[in-house]
Amino acid sequence: MNTTSMPRVTFTLHATDGAARSGVLAMPRGDIRTPAFMPVGTAGTVKGLYMEQVRGTGADIILGNTYHLMLRPGAERVARLGGLHEMARWPYPILTDSGGFQVMSLSALRKLDEKGVIFQSHIDGSKHELTPERSVEIQLLLDSDIIMQLDECIRLPAPEREVERAMRLSLRWAERSKAAFGNQPGRALFGIVQGGALPHLRRESAEALAALDLPGYAIGGLAVGEPQAEMLATIEATEPTLPREKPRYLMGVGTPDDILEAIRRGVDMFDCVMPTRAGRHGTAYTRHGKLNLRNARYAEEKRPMDETSTCPAARDYSLAYLHHLTKSGEMLGQMLLTWNNIAYYQQLVAGARAAIAAGRYADYVLETREGWARGAP
Amino acid sequence: MNTTSMPRVTFTLHATDGAARSGVLAMPRGDIRTPAFMPVGTAGTVKGLYMEQVRGTGADIILGNTYHLMLRPGAERVARLGGLHEMARWPYPILTDSGGFQVMSLSALRKLDEKGVIFQSHIDGSKHELTPERSVEIQLLLDSDIIMQLDECIRLPAPEREVERAMRLSLRWAERSKAAFGNQPGRALFGIVQGGALPHLRRESAEALAALDLPGYAIGGLAVGEPQAEMLATIEATEPTLPREKPRYLMGVGTPDDILEAIRRGVDMFDCVMPTRAGRHGTAYTRHGKLNLRNARYAEEKRPMDETSTCPAARDYSLAYLHHLTKSGEMLGQMLLTWNNIAYYQQLVAGARAAIAAGRYADYVLETREGWARGAP
Repeated sequence: MNTTSMPRVTFTLHATDGAARSGVLAMPRGDIRTPAFMPVGTAGTVKGLYMEQVRGTGADIILGNTYHLMLRPGAERVARLGGLHEMARWPYPILTDSGGFQVMSLSALRKLDEKGVIFQSHIDGSKHELTPERSVEIQLLLDSDIIMQLDECIRLPAPEREVERAMRLSLRWAERSKAAFGNQPGRALFGIVQGGALPHLRRESAEALAALDLPGYAIGGLAVGEPQAEMLATIEATEPTLPREKPRYLMGVGTPDDILEAIRRGVDMFDCVMPTRAGRHGTAYTRHGKLNLRNARYAEEKRPMDETSTCPAARDYSLAYLHHLTKSGEMLGQMLLTWNNIAYYQQLVAGARAAIAAGRYADYVLETREGWARGAP
Repeated sequence: MNTTSMPRVTFTLHATDGAARSGVLAMPRGDIRTPAFMPVGTAGTVKGLYMEQVRGTGADIILGNTYHLMLRPGAERVARLGGLHEMARWPYPILTDSGGFQVMSLSALRKLDEKGVIFQSHIDGSKHELTPERSVEIQLLLDSDIIMQLDECIRLPAPEREVERAMRLSLRWAERSKAAFGNQPGRALFGIVQGGALPHLRRESAEALAALDLPGYAIGGLAVGEPQAEMLATIEATEPTLPREKPRYLMGVGTPDDILEAIRRGVDMFDCVMPTRAGRHGTAYTRHGKLNLRNARYAEEKRPMDETSTCPAARDYSLAYLHHLTKSGEMLGQMLLTWNNIAYYQQLVAGARAAIAAGRYADYVLETREGWARGAP
């Protein structure tokens, strides 16, 4: 797709309710209604789902992992195959991460310096380099719509000087990413706020990034095992410094409750492997709370997970059958629970959008939690 | 489904071409067009496929494994859940095997005598008994449409007296199965011809079973690793003794070529795990022959497996993407190849039905083989 001849990316806020916001990020490949949840399509596939199903759940955008795709099938190969949208049959927007997070969590033998990071593939041990410039180049080869800057994700807790060093390095990498990105009218480059759990570092990072006037901003370095309260406090410390007119993306978050609380604090976009990963391991997210399908209580339960859902996985299959499939390790069980979970996450953010528009977001959060607490009728 | 008030099962031959036959086995839950291929739904699911997809490939009937289902979730439990059709959301005919084959191939600590067989579950080591009567009872609890008699499947090669003993035992079990089955107007009990690779034993078995006037007959004990020529010779030795007006089912067969050759020799029904199992291991059956999707030759091949197919898996996904998914061990690769394979097997038997009706079956076999030999254009 030739995005240079396309309209610029625009973000329009349609409603606010307290700090919560609802809007549309308009891109050449489609509108992204916010708050938005982006299913994770790690290696060019949302595990266990056909793209038609992903779209059918209401997803406007999916996420691809630069680290995985650069190693296999390789960025240049994806480009020769017509880009990620063409290869994976998803013609709608795709956000790609920078590869930095997986370099830290998956690869071996990392060597990081001012220039970038050298690492070994977890697949075959081959050596690769990722710099801010190469990360942008790879993401453009993938034909990504939203491109993330390379940043340094450190493990927390860490000493303040280490958090500060990584945050400042990430800022310099943001400038280099912007220069490498250049002018791409149909695409967006997002900067990433770092600074650990330290409010003054988060503010410094957000201010410096805001000065770069990027099309969007992410809050990075969270969802790495910290308590929810710490994550929410960090969002609260960062949010006032983020430009109001730009989309805000909280990377890698989270549980349904995390998402509701982050929306309440002004976040617009989310991604998380939780619904897909949990689905492969027998866990369903539903209106009635989190269900463990291995539980023997479901062995003869003829009711479905949620007869009011528009998702066939939730509506048409008995809990007993899902229990049987899960206990038997059958692929169909993983397929159905993943489908249900992605559909539920989409239902959750769709409900948030409607509630913000109606000025009743706080009530929506309460009602949703009551449903989880009540369990199945 | 109350099948006692339903019309009897009827089998009508519409066309023959040499020994090859085309017809319809009409049952309350639907017509089975023959020659028919039955996808294997081992534990109440055709692995990796939604039932809607299975139906969409043209399957009129699927197979369920009594051994697997009696152990998990259990026959009585399936009955309480409304039967296998209801549980697995497949409202069309289901054939269940007797459990005997898997008892021999999967379970431990078998003790076989005149009465039946005692064995240990391969899942949890629990002890179970399978007699001709219990096998019929289980299959009726599953609400099966075509019920197979319990037989003894011995490993070949074996001494003649051992083959003869097992064949005679299987005949006595056929009589007991018939008595246990009783009068079930909407269902069919099939007997199983045994006798190894010995024509006189096969004939004796087929004659004795024919005298029982069962609604259908299977040829058992094949597809256990013998050369194709031996399998075909056994079919040829058996077929003239089988009643012409009853459907013939060759159990567990086979490759596409096996199926074409068996149809040529008068077989009407088939089941095999090959298309589903191969699909999970990176192999595709197509009009252009068998493809190994791990092969690097597909890494940048934008064409699909078969652009003329009506199956989306064959038609809409590039070989390069399928290669990537297979190399990456992604579930979607297994899902797509399984879908393609079941669709191809259905296409193969649909082509056979049309060719028999047109009196050009020999040409159909030649053309099909030419396509396999030619490979992709």
